[in-house]
Amino acid sequence: MKDERPGRDEGSLPELRRNPATGIWTILAPARKLRPGAHRGREKAEGEPCPFCPGNERMTPPEVWAEGRESGEPDSPGWRIRVFPNLYPALTPEGSKGISRGRGGARRAFGYHEVIVHTPHHDRSLASMEEEELRRLVEAYRGRYRELCGRRGVSQVMIIVNHGREAGASLPHPHAQVFALPRVPSAVREELREFRRVEGRCPLCSEAKAARREGRTVAANRTWEAFAPFASRSPYEVWLAPRRHAPDFARAGGKELEGMADMLLRVMRGLAELLEDPPYNLWLHSAPCDGKDYHYYHYHLEVVPRLTTVAGFELSTGMYIDVLPPEEAASRLKERMARGV
Amino acid sequence: MKDERPGRDEGSLPELRRNPATGIWTILAPARKLRPGAHRGREKAEGEPCPFCPGNERMTPPEVWAEGRESGEPDSPGWRIRVFPNLYPALTPEGSKGISRGRGGARRAFGYHEVIVHTPHHDRSLASMEEEELRRLVEAYRGRYRELCGRRGVSQVMIIVNHGREAGASLPHPHAQVFALPRVPSAVREELREFRRVEGRCPLCSEAKAARREGRTVAANRTWEAFAPFASRSPYEVWLAPRRHAPDFARAGGKELEGMADMLLRVMRGLAELLEDPPYNLWLHSAPCDGKDYHYYHYHLEVVPRLTTVAGFELSTGMYIDVLPPEEAASRLKERMARGV
Repeated sequence: MKDERPGRDEGSLPELRRNPATGIWTILAPARKLRPGAHRGREKAEGEPCPFCPGNERMTPPEVWAEGRESGEPDSPGWRIRVFPNLYPALTPEGSKGISRGRGGARRAFGYHEVIVHTPHHDRSLASMEEEELRRLVEAYRGRYRELCGRRGVSQVMIIVNHGREAGASLPHPHAQVFALPRVPSAVREELREFRRVEGRCPLCSEAKAARREGRTVAANRTWEAFAPFASRSPYEVWLAPRRHAPDFARAGGKELEGMADMLLRVMRGLAELLEDPPYNLWLHSAPCDGKDYHYYHYHLEVVPRLTTVAGFELSTGMYIDVLPPEEAASRLKERMARGV
Repeated sequence: MKDERPGRDEGSLPELRRNPATGIWTILAPARKLRPGAHRGREKAEGEPCPFCPGNERMTPPEVWAEGRESGEPDSPGWRIRVFPNLYPALTPEGSKGISRGRGGARRAFGYHEVIVHTPHHDRSLASMEEEELRRLVEAYRGRYRELCGRRGVSQVMIIVNHGREAGASLPHPHAQVFALPRVPSAVREELREFRRVEGRCPLCSEAKAARREGRTVAANRTWEAFAPFASRSPYEVWLAPRRHAPDFARAGGKELEGMADMLLRVMRGLAELLEDPPYNLWLHSAPCDGKDYHYYHYHLEVVPRLTTVAGFELSTGMYIDVLPPEEAASRLKERMARGV
């Protein structure tokens, strides 16, 4: 790997590698080391312009979608939600679906890596959005999800929000990342295995039911519910799922999206108030879009506040150690949410 | 779960839970929230005595093993290495091998959770130990490993070092944690699956060979070698493995332990100098001790410096994004190690 040519030369294009001893996949994306905040201790300098703020559209790659602009050119202000390819992509449309196998065998990692800027407001986190804004946002999520799922060679689309530095956010302006992957990632494969193993008795439907019985449900509306999982990995982990057994986010209808927005807003506000704007990771797990049948799966959102450190035990075992019973987390969160906003 | 009785009541004993949707295991260990540094932002107060320093032996549970004390009582100073049960255990010998299944079904997590204090010196990290000290330490590792592996109901023994707060160390005094688990954890099960799949062509032996060919080997002696894996998860990840195909750390002989100590010292010094004492996780992966045959496995140490954050992508996919080609990491580390110490 040559060092002389900085920037986005051939050698810095993302590559998909697999560890033959562990089965773990890594995307090697050298260009990403150039992104703001990529290095320990290298914080984004104060006063530097935010590339996600209106007026700075030229700091990002050209937009692929935007919402809310009534007039004006693409890549100009006036948008309410804006989507563009990640400037430091972990996946590239010019890539190959193959795996790199040692020297000389490097193959670029195929896929799409986009950024969805949630709002023009630099400080408006999910918890501080208006209902109407969040409704438009989950519609935008579904739009990008459908679009990328439909592309040739894409097997799985992940939508991920990292909030706060401890959760890996490199820029504070609220945004999601969308990864359209050429393969079903191992965590989803594991879930599919669990769901298929008990086909006919969806484990997510069962979990939601158990949560109601055991006082771990934190909120519900007509189409969605939110609960603290029985085997929570970390304090205040919350799952949000549609109440109907539904494998695929792409097929969510208008009422279901409304329910999702309502549930997400209430949970994120509850967490923000109870834990004082904690760092968190939030992601969507939905059925792969590789054309196979996943009727047994149940799509959902997972929210993991990052109050403790993922340490050697977690990395070496794939297990977690949690210190707060989810029964207790749910009861505190419920109480806070009941007080209203 | 009652809150009124603080401390180590029945309700705060560790419990093993499994998420039926993901297959992920979590140990719920409420007592661990009382340990120093367990909470975000709650640093150990300056000037508080270190429970791992000589003279403070009464701050820990009674020792189960110690090395170097020529006279004097147990739990008195004079030791060079000291082992005791973790004060905030994630596993308990009075536990059950079963899994908790919902309300009322809580079962205590069976196992042993020990602390190995590496040295009486509060600031002597692995990288700053003498050769002789490190040799005694890996002997102590093997001793505890053998002892715990031999106990009834133990399926897997993990030895783990967390160094630095970003790597999850709650106390700075150098130490390892030993987890004797009632089940083979999922990360090890995944590895076993990969090894068995290519039985007769050990993937670790192949990786070590490929590393030599591709310039990713950073050091070698007569019995051990160290290399940057082709699919490194993070910058400067290093694996250390015995050169002979060996499944089980318990069977390491004297020469192999010497080689291990030499290799570990050189790698840890190289990393400490090149990266200025980085936070890291270090662990041993060895064949389960559940009585089955794992001749296809190859035991090894994995060192993962924590220079980047495990974020939503990693948690939601089980994949990693790395920004530094391991070829480049190996070459920088080799160069630094060649300069000597």
